[in-house]
Amino acid sequence: MITEHALLDVIPGREQEFVESMERAKAIVAASPGFVSLRVERCMERPSCFLLLVEWERLEDHTEGFRGSPGYQDWRVALHHFYDPFPVVEHFEPIVTA
Amino acid sequence: MITEHALLDVIPGREQEFVESMERAKAIVAASPGFVSLRVERCMERPSCFLLLVEWERLEDHTEGFRGSPGYQDWRVALHHFYDPFPVVEHFEPIVTA
Repeated sequence: MITEHALLDVIPGREQEFVESMERAKAIVAASPGFVSLRVERCMERPSCFLLLVEWERLEDHTEGFRGSPGYQDWRVALHHFYDPFPVVEHFEPIVTA
Repeated sequence: MITEHALLDVIPGREQEFVESMERAKAIVAASPGFVSLRVERCMERPSCFLLLVEWERLEDHTEGFRGSPGYQDWRVALHHFYDPFPVVEHFEPIVTA
């Protein structure tokens, strides 16, 4: 399992609209093969910043499966206009847990 | 519950030593009141970067309890010399899950 990670800087003043759009759009990613879980959390120090963590069975489930799917276009339309700047998305492998 | 989040940039060449030190040091944070879980994950695109996620029952369990404890000094000695630059640590609250 791998983790997709991004810090989402939402345009100030549009945070609530972003959250509502994410609530609707999460079904798109959740239906994608290899999807495991999604968490969106809000930064307490910088309330326009949100943490996105999506767990996938394999890296390719995100980079090829989801990003190559028709659903990804709907996800983009629903969410990408809230971000400024556009986020850096990276992937992480588990190393240590407690 | 809240999430402590940091992206840890480890000095290149010291990644394995950092992981071994984290394996030993995790017991310090895990013994702190209000600790829920810890995950350290390694970035696939930038292998010197690690994601630290620590869940705490309350913000103060981290910012006052752990950081004010004697154990925090041991944690610092074990780990802080691996980081360059020193990481930004922020806290996040759950908003959306799937």
